[in-house]
Amino acid sequence: MAVYTEVSDKALTQFLKRYDLGTVLSLKGIAGGVENTNYLLHMSTGSYILTLYEKRVETKDLPFFIGLMDHLATQGFQCPLPMRDRNGEALGTLAGRPAAMTSFLEGMEVKQQNAGHCQMAGEAMARLHLAAGDYKTERENALAPHGWPVLVEASLPRADTVEEGMANLISGELDHAQHHWPKRIPAGVIHADMFKDNVFFLEGELSGVIDFYFACNDFLAYDIAIGINAWCFDENFNFQPKFCAAFLAGYQSVRELEKGEVDALPTLARGAALRFLLTRLNDWLNVPAGALVTPHDPKAFSKRLRFLQTVGDAKEFGLI
Amino acid sequence: MAVYTEVSDKALTQFLKRYDLGTVLSLKGIAGGVENTNYLLHMSTGSYILTLYEKRVETKDLPFFIGLMDHLATQGFQCPLPMRDRNGEALGTLAGRPAAMTSFLEGMEVKQQNAGHCQMAGEAMARLHLAAGDYKTERENALAPHGWPVLVEASLPRADTVEEGMANLISGELDHAQHHWPKRIPAGVIHADMFKDNVFFLEGELSGVIDFYFACNDFLAYDIAIGINAWCFDENFNFQPKFCAAFLAGYQSVRELEKGEVDALPTLARGAALRFLLTRLNDWLNVPAGALVTPHDPKAFSKRLRFLQTVGDAKEFGLI
Repeated sequence: MAVYTEVSDKALTQFLKRYDLGTVLSLKGIAGGVENTNYLLHMSTGSYILTLYEKRVETKDLPFFIGLMDHLATQGFQCPLPMRDRNGEALGTLAGRPAAMTSFLEGMEVKQQNAGHCQMAGEAMARLHLAAGDYKTERENALAPHGWPVLVEASLPRADTVEEGMANLISGELDHAQHHWPKRIPAGVIHADMFKDNVFFLEGELSGVIDFYFACNDFLAYDIAIGINAWCFDENFNFQPKFCAAFLAGYQSVRELEKGEVDALPTLARGAALRFLLTRLNDWLNVPAGALVTPHDPKAFSKRLRFLQTVGDAKEFGLI
Repeated sequence: MAVYTEVSDKALTQFLKRYDLGTVLSLKGIAGGVENTNYLLHMSTGSYILTLYEKRVETKDLPFFIGLMDHLATQGFQCPLPMRDRNGEALGTLAGRPAAMTSFLEGMEVKQQNAGHCQMAGEAMARLHLAAGDYKTERENALAPHGWPVLVEASLPRADTVEEGMANLISGELDHAQHHWPKRIPAGVIHADMFKDNVFFLEGELSGVIDFYFACNDFLAYDIAIGINAWCFDENFNFQPKFCAAFLAGYQSVRELEKGEVDALPTLARGAALRFLLTRLNDWLNVPAGALVTPHDPKAFSKRLRFLQTVGDAKEFGLI
C-alpha cells in the first residue's frame, strides 16, 4: 500500500483538461495496492480512480488491461470503466508516469467471507470469463508454470529461513506441476488475481471486481484454481469445504465445467498455491530499503499448498 | 502517511449503526497524515472522514479537538464538522481505537503557493482566531518553549550528524527564545500546524482548514509565526517577501495586530522554526523499525531558521 508518486494540483489540472469530467473537488491518495499509485478523485461529475502505473507494471501491457476493462464494462460486467479523453485516449501521462482514470466502484471488500460471498465471487468469475470470450487482444501469463523456475531459483536457497521444509515443498511441487499440468482445456482471458481485496460487496450483493493488472490468457480453470486459494480458506488458511462448494456452485451456475477441467482442478489449485507462494517468497526475501509496503507472509500459501497436495479428486472441493 | 489500523467491513457496519448517516458505499484508507489513520467514507448521505486516533494523540485531548472543530464549524468557519451519533456523542471506539467521523471537505492543497494563496491563508487564520475566541475548553501547548529543552536534550548529541553546525544553531536559538520570548500579548486558541497540507483550495478559493490535532492555547501571534514558516518560503526554503506580505495583509484584513505582537514577531518566527526543526530532528533520529512513514527532513527548518535569525524587525516581513 502506498502512494509512490505525488501529483501536484497543477499537474492534475493540466492532465484533466483533456477530459470532459468537470472540475476537481478533491484528490486523496489511497493506502492500498502494491503495484500502482491510486488516487480517489472527486470531480463535479462524480468519483473516479486515478491510477499512476509504477515500475512493476509493464507499459506495453497497459493497452491490454485498459482495453479489457473497457470491454468488460461495456458488456455490463461490474468493473471500473476507463475514461476516455476528447481524443478517445484512455491512457495519458501524469507526473512522469503512464496514468489512466476509471469510474469509481462503490463497495467494500469482505474481511471474513461467508458461503454467500464465495458463491457470488464464483458467479462473477464465470461471468467475467464469458464476457471476455470475444476480447481480441492477448497477453501471455508470465506467472504460468514456465515462469516459475526463475522464481524458484531466486528463492530456494533461502526458503528454509522463512519456514522449515519450504524448499522441499517448492521443488517437489514444481516437479509435480511440470509433469501433471493440463494441456487441452478451455482457455481465455482470466483475472488471475481475484482475491478478496479485489471484489467489492454492497449491501450483501457483489458490486464489482477491480485490479485487472494480472489479467492474461490462460486456462479458465486456472482462474478457478486461484479462486479456490482466494475464497475457500479461512483467516488461518484452513480449507473450508462449504466455501469451496459455494464458490464452485456459483461458477457453474453461469458456466459449466468440462470433464477435463474438473480432472485438472486439483493440480491447478496446487499450482496456484505455488504461484502465490513463489511471488510472496521472492518479495519477502527481497524487501528493498525504504520499502513503503510490508510484504505478505509466504506461509499463508505454504499452508494452503500442503492442504491442497492432499486433494486427490475435485469431488473433495465439493463439486457436484 | 499510512493506515495504521485496519477496519473490517463488519466492525464498520457495527460502528455506523449508532449514526443516522445512511448506508456505507465504500471505505478507502487515505495515504497521508502522520498522526492518525484516516479513511474516506462514502455513505448514501455523502462523504465523510473517519479518523482512528493512534498513539501519538492523547485520548484525553480528543474532546478539546472535536469540540473545537464543532465550535468553529457551527460558526461558519470552513473546517470538518464532527458527526454526532443518536446520543449526541462525536467520539466512539472502532477497531480498538478512539474514532470520530467528520464531514468531508472538498478541496486540494497547493504544492506551490502564490501570493493569493498566502493572503487567503492569512485571512483564514485570523478568522479562526476570532471564531475560536469564545471556545471555553483549554489545552496547553506542549510544544511551546517550555517543551523544547527535552527535545533539545534528546537530539543535540546527534544533531551534527544530520547537518554540520545544527547543534550550535539549536542551542543558540533555544537560549535566544528563553531570553526574548514575549509575555503579555493576546492569547487564545491557535491551530499551531497550519501548513499547506492542512489548507484546501477549490477553484482558486480557500475551501477549508483541516487537522486540528495540534491546536492549543497560546499567543495568537505564535500561530502567525508558524504561518510565516509554512507559507512564506518557497520549495527550496528561501524566504519570499511577497508571500509574507500577502499572508500578513490577509491576516490583518480580518484582525489587526497589536504593537506588542508586531514587536514579538521576529522572535516568534524564529521560535516556530526551532519548534518544527526539533520535532523533525527527533523523528529523523528515531525512525522506528518497520515505520510506515518517511520522516520529513529537518534541514527544511534549519535553513528557515538561519534566515529568520537575520530578521531584526517585523517590517522585514512586509508588515505595513
